[in-house]
Amino acid sequence: MNPATETATAIMRHAEQLARHTESPDMLTRTYLTPAHHAAAAQLTEWMRDAGMSVRRDAAGNVIGRYEGMTPGAPALLTGSHFDTVRNAGRYDGNLGILLPIACIAAWNRQGRRFPFAIEVIGFAEEEGVRFKATLLGSRAIAGNFDQSVLERRDDAGISMREAIAAAGFDVAALSAAAYKRDDVLAFVEVHIEQGPVLLDEGLPVGVVTAIAGASRFMVEVTGLAGHAGTVPMGLRRDAAMTAAEIGLYIERRCSVAPGLVGTVGVLEVPNGAANVVPGRAFFSIDIRAEQDALREAAVRDVLQEMKAIAARRNVTLDINHTHDAASVPCAPWLQAQLEQAIAGLGLPVRRLPSGAGHDAMAVAALTDVAMLFVRCGNGGISHHPDETMSVEDAEAAAAVFSRFVESFIPRSWRQPSLERLA
Amino acid sequence: MNPATETATAIMRHAEQLARHTESPDMLTRTYLTPAHHAAAAQLTEWMRDAGMSVRRDAAGNVIGRYEGMTPGAPALLTGSHFDTVRNAGRYDGNLGILLPIACIAAWNRQGRRFPFAIEVIGFAEEEGVRFKATLLGSRAIAGNFDQSVLERRDDAGISMREAIAAAGFDVAALSAAAYKRDDVLAFVEVHIEQGPVLLDEGLPVGVVTAIAGASRFMVEVTGLAGHAGTVPMGLRRDAAMTAAEIGLYIERRCSVAPGLVGTVGVLEVPNGAANVVPGRAFFSIDIRAEQDALREAAVRDVLQEMKAIAARRNVTLDINHTHDAASVPCAPWLQAQLEQAIAGLGLPVRRLPSGAGHDAMAVAALTDVAMLFVRCGNGGISHHPDETMSVEDAEAAAAVFSRFVESFIPRSWRQPSLERLA
Repeated sequence: MNPATETATAIMRHAEQLARHTESPDMLTRTYLTPAHHAAAAQLTEWMRDAGMSVRRDAAGNVIGRYEGMTPGAPALLTGSHFDTVRNAGRYDGNLGILLPIACIAAWNRQGRRFPFAIEVIGFAEEEGVRFKATLLGSRAIAGNFDQSVLERRDDAGISMREAIAAAGFDVAALSAAAYKRDDVLAFVEVHIEQGPVLLDEGLPVGVVTAIAGASRFMVEVTGLAGHAGTVPMGLRRDAAMTAAEIGLYIERRCSVAPGLVGTVGVLEVPNGAANVVPGRAFFSIDIRAEQDALREAAVRDVLQEMKAIAARRNVTLDINHTHDAASVPCAPWLQAQLEQAIAGLGLPVRRLPSGAGHDAMAVAALTDVAMLFVRCGNGGISHHPDETMSVEDAEAAAAVFSRFVESFIPRSWRQPSLERLA
Repeated sequence: MNPATETATAIMRHAEQLARHTESPDMLTRTYLTPAHHAAAAQLTEWMRDAGMSVRRDAAGNVIGRYEGMTPGAPALLTGSHFDTVRNAGRYDGNLGILLPIACIAAWNRQGRRFPFAIEVIGFAEEEGVRFKATLLGSRAIAGNFDQSVLERRDDAGISMREAIAAAGFDVAALSAAAYKRDDVLAFVEVHIEQGPVLLDEGLPVGVVTAIAGASRFMVEVTGLAGHAGTVPMGLRRDAAMTAAEIGLYIERRCSVAPGLVGTVGVLEVPNGAANVVPGRAFFSIDIRAEQDALREAAVRDVLQEMKAIAARRNVTLDINHTHDAASVPCAPWLQAQLEQAIAGLGLPVRRLPSGAGHDAMAVAALTDVAMLFVRCGNGGISHHPDETMSVEDAEAAAAVFSRFVESFIPRSWRQPSLERLA
């Protein structure tokens, strides 16, 4: 077996083995600090050690493997992703971003190859927010942005996060010490499946993320007037469901005008709806995202204005609750450029695309420059679902790109000021 | 108090008193053969006797009061409506059509006034279908169309209709004997609140029903492809919710082109919808009604065709279940004409309108010619709801129209053939 194939095979095999650590016998569910989560951490630790890394765990439960550089204690290129999962998950979301670097490092370790910098692979203990309804716990901790207030949140069994961390043998008081020092870090690059259909649609194995999209979210309640489906003439109706439908279609149309802009009505419900009743109430959600904040903000403004016009015309009232607003997190151009060079150097087309989903890199951006490499998903791009797939060929391509990127990596601080000016 | 005011006041007072017979302390719910239902029947019996009627109950539980004509045993003009209710009902739906004739007959009885025909007021025991999911039980029984198969249906407590009828002291074997003989009947006229906003909107107390609309009903399941709200570009989506929204708005638009045609999406649901997930599944109902069957059938054809076009364009599949189809039931022109003469004779504008909702008259049409007098609802025309209202002024107007109609009533069989030819 050639080394590239060996690496890809290891990634696929480890993904399958890691997926066995689950809370449910018939599906993959692995939430923060459960027995399945601890078992997965132990497994990652073993594979990291086998790959020549020293391994530690921090107070957030992150599993951190360090592959020393030529000089012990050198600043590190960080990589990694999360090993918690959603309920009924796919096996590649998050996990791939830990297993792929481990396999690449194992190959370098077999060759006795070292770099002028260390590499640290971080298995983030929590990103999805399933157990405590708080996301990105692992990456916030290493970025020094862990929000102490979430320690009091309780899971469905009534256990607080503080209790769960203590019960797992970690020291809550040491959470702030989990933060990296800026001087020890060169950059962060996260490998992740795309969780969407763009690369699949274009026949490409990998893509370079330009930014993690900003998002605005709303929950809207429409109040019209319930009526008998047979007796209220069309012109006298105040139909809450058709108001929601018209707004939904406007959002769809408005968010289709610019690439990189998306708008979704994921919740749509007529409470206690009956076939013979004109709906007097309806609920729906709005989720609008874009790489460029101005694009998203303009869409949000237009949607809010059109919603009000539709509601006025239909003589219904809207209760609009703005539940979430986050700016876009750009990937560092100098890191993107080096990822692109690695891709082009392998003879692959370079595709740049935004990430519509949130990722650990979003939180790590508070610590250091970040970049992301997306890997194609199969099955229409489905993710957060057992039908999520990734081919062994794409694992090989992604590992090749990651390896070439690391092997050619020039930290920003090492570039000559004169070169910077020339560029 | 003048006699007309006295009649109206009695109607309002009786409606309030009857509403006290309920299964729930805090709302009006009175379903077939429950203790509250029996108590209401006893109360109606008392009021009928007080108004000079002889009272009997048939095997379906209908309460039938007979006000003899000048000649004992003369054929009867039938009137009435139902005294069961939906859950959390208004007090006028159904009940008004029993209480109004009782109050009018009480007035005639005080005057010692008799007609060349008898009047029978039928309190139909069941119309709404709440307890056993079978509607129009009372009116089907008197029309000789009681469906024996529904006797085996069970309520939520597991009690069959057969058991409930027997427990109430009625003889299931006598159900077919509840049917009237055609020769004993001259016509049926039902007084009912409009349950819609048309009369309210036009400032009219009463209207003459032209027909009870036919109806077509469908349940539709849309299957698209679930996806991440951030990662699936607009152009690659197969959004089940927006498919339902687009179809809903088409139905609304298509059914707005002709007066008397209505189309409703009363059920609209994205199962397990989440703000950050593009909906892969959605359910919705379609209810299309019209006075003219051809109008409804054309709308149904167009809707089915457009649904398929929308689904094809959006690359989703539809599972369309045709759950109900009923032709329109016309009101007899000769009865409509006499109701119109009564209205015009009182100096009121004559408004003809279809009934979009089903009524007992629909089932009685199998026995004899039927007509309906609608009375204005307040509160935007709301019904099947505690906010349902009717004013004492409108009760007085409706009672005046009903009285004048009865006092001037010429049975069809009594009209001269020569006059018929002239007309």
